[in-house]
Amino acid sequence: MSDFLEVLNRQSLKRHIKDGYADRKAQKKKFDEERKLQRLEKSVVKKKEVPKNMESHESDVEEDISTSGRGYTVSVALPGSILDNAQSPELRTYLAGQIARACVIFQVDEIIIFNETEPSDKKLSMEGEFRGVGKKGNGCVQLARILQYLECPQYLRKFILPRHHDLKYAGLLNPLDSPHHMRMEDDVPYREGVVLDRPTKDGKGSFVDCGALKIVQIDKKLQTNVRVTVKMLKSEKEKRKYFKGKAVSPSEPRIKAGIYWGYSVRLASSLSSVFADCTFGDKYDLAIGTSERGVSVDKFTLPKFKHLLIVFGGVKGLEESLAADDDLEGIDDPALLFSHYLNTCPQQGSGTIRTEEAILISLSALRPKIDARFNKIEPA
Amino acid sequence: MSDFLEVLNRQSLKRHIKDGYADRKAQKKKFDEERKLQRLEKSVVKKKEVPKNMESHESDVEEDISTSGRGYTVSVALPGSILDNAQSPELRTYLAGQIARACVIFQVDEIIIFNETEPSDKKLSMEGEFRGVGKKGNGCVQLARILQYLECPQYLRKFILPRHHDLKYAGLLNPLDSPHHMRMEDDVPYREGVVLDRPTKDGKGSFVDCGALKIVQIDKKLQTNVRVTVKMLKSEKEKRKYFKGKAVSPSEPRIKAGIYWGYSVRLASSLSSVFADCTFGDKYDLAIGTSERGVSVDKFTLPKFKHLLIVFGGVKGLEESLAADDDLEGIDDPALLFSHYLNTCPQQGSGTIRTEEAILISLSALRPKIDARFNKIEPA
Repeated sequence: MSDFLEVLNRQSLKRHIKDGYADRKAQKKKFDEERKLQRLEKSVVKKKEVPKNMESHESDVEEDISTSGRGYTVSVALPGSILDNAQSPELRTYLAGQIARACVIFQVDEIIIFNETEPSDKKLSMEGEFRGVGKKGNGCVQLARILQYLECPQYLRKFILPRHHDLKYAGLLNPLDSPHHMRMEDDVPYREGVVLDRPTKDGKGSFVDCGALKIVQIDKKLQTNVRVTVKMLKSEKEKRKYFKGKAVSPSEPRIKAGIYWGYSVRLASSLSSVFADCTFGDKYDLAIGTSERGVSVDKFTLPKFKHLLIVFGGVKGLEESLAADDDLEGIDDPALLFSHYLNTCPQQGSGTIRTEEAILISLSALRPKIDARFNKIEPA
Repeated sequence: MSDFLEVLNRQSLKRHIKDGYADRKAQKKKFDEERKLQRLEKSVVKKKEVPKNMESHESDVEEDISTSGRGYTVSVALPGSILDNAQSPELRTYLAGQIARACVIFQVDEIIIFNETEPSDKKLSMEGEFRGVGKKGNGCVQLARILQYLECPQYLRKFILPRHHDLKYAGLLNPLDSPHHMRMEDDVPYREGVVLDRPTKDGKGSFVDCGALKIVQIDKKLQTNVRVTVKMLKSEKEKRKYFKGKAVSPSEPRIKAGIYWGYSVRLASSLSSVFADCTFGDKYDLAIGTSERGVSVDKFTLPKFKHLLIVFGGVKGLEESLAADDDLEGIDDPALLFSHYLNTCPQQGSGTIRTEEAILISLSALRPKIDARFNKIEPA
């Protein structure tokens, strides 16, 4: 998107917000409209690289949810500045690993890292796509890089992830042990792979290293070194030199088989741009903010949703993230940004809850509500 | 207790267990009887030091629960071996800190650290009262020491906690920010203090450093350097040279005012001795075990209790802790040890949940059930 359009959007947004409004309800309604505008604004997005000819596939898959599949998604957003709350490069790395594990335990499909520092620094983060050097103040890109590193199956890392100073202490990270990090001998319906630089005849597709006992020959011709999700085909497995597979959308394991398939990582230039660029579809249809100042989660009934977004604040809470966001000038209460603003840990015994703790606590509190909504809980 | 009695108890326990039993229910009933026996067995207990003449006070307080007070207690038990799952002395320390914070967030009153290593090592731990040197395999005492360090208000540490190699990386620990860690100028009903080495006339009590703006003169004459909970008395505060206070039981802030007052730390020589020596009264009347192999927490209705015990396994789960316990030979399923054996994170997206994660997840899942049981949740 051109700079011109970006400025235009921001201005119309500000105008909207600065117009007089009678009450908080009206303010909230307006913000919903703003979000539609913001969806046009393209922030720096670093998704799992999906081959171009796969992307159209995604919507087909969405239509075809089997009984064992999972149609909904859960996204978690948090500020990258939380890394500055760690006391050493080792602990910064460890903290990023805690975030990754918390999200995997609760099958989170997307992690959005937003910038909550001064607007002047924002550009840095916008352009800084994975050029962080592990110093203070560069939390967003460093957190994103470590999250991506952990999400990537180990056998793919050497192909896909360049070495980087931010990953210096990656040896300290606890593995995610996610279903898409399978062992070589596992007999599984899907695998993650990387397209090998090996010539094939026209119409013979590509060869893919899926970390399996044999190389996998897939149906489509794809670019070398691209990461791809492969559906393993069973026929004549033992006789052939190669396994046979089919390139599919990375969302297919979740949608068709209900298998958790890791998270994608997205960088957002500010709190407001978290709401834009929903990775999984049109928009997040349910946005929950978490805060000590929210309504008790015990009183909360989860509405039906397709794409849930749960937003966590940093060291100083979502109030701070809001204050740092120029586009949200005029909005003084973070509760207005969300469908629901929840306190997920009423009567907390500590004055502070750290973001890495809040993710585990909140997702554990919301999980039974999500499961009940999608009828995964049988009656007691 | 003499060695003789200890041997006697263990033998009678084994005999009980080895007697033929028809079914699992009978086995369970027997184990309940065993527990009564075990309560006689004194394992190494390191409580907050309560002055002798305070202890009788405790039961009086239990009787007198005001509407704002909290009569019940929550204890958490976990194996000290989890520290061996950390990759450096810094991360061992940090992990201990994570346990402490998780327990404080959910107002846990007691943390029990049990030994799950080979029986031959058990004696080491029995005698090893806080003599750990931070090496692998000495997790119980090191974890206990760090937990005690964090629980102790900062201004008391220099009086009460000797310097120790285990605390070398204590600077990396995140503070607990618990209500009993107040600031100097806070006007609070209770404070933690240490009895000063300052002579007083007979009948004039002792002087106590409570980290307040002035030294506190309490009613009772107590031993120097003993930690004591002080009820602050309001009268003529500003005129006097000293504040006036009254020594009370450390459970009074919880019981009378519902203020969370930190946790006590107890070392247990094995899984079975976790159930003995309930710090808060006669016995734990509700024991919950946590495991991936348990019943879904979503189907669980929490019964009424007075002293709840929640037990977590280590790296290899409670099965491993059970196997290492000689006294529980013949019991092959950890579920038999507990009133309820729960899976607190159904459909987990990671193959493993680390103990420090499990505590946050499980306590967050159980919290609304506890609150509802004690009518703390207003209807939605």
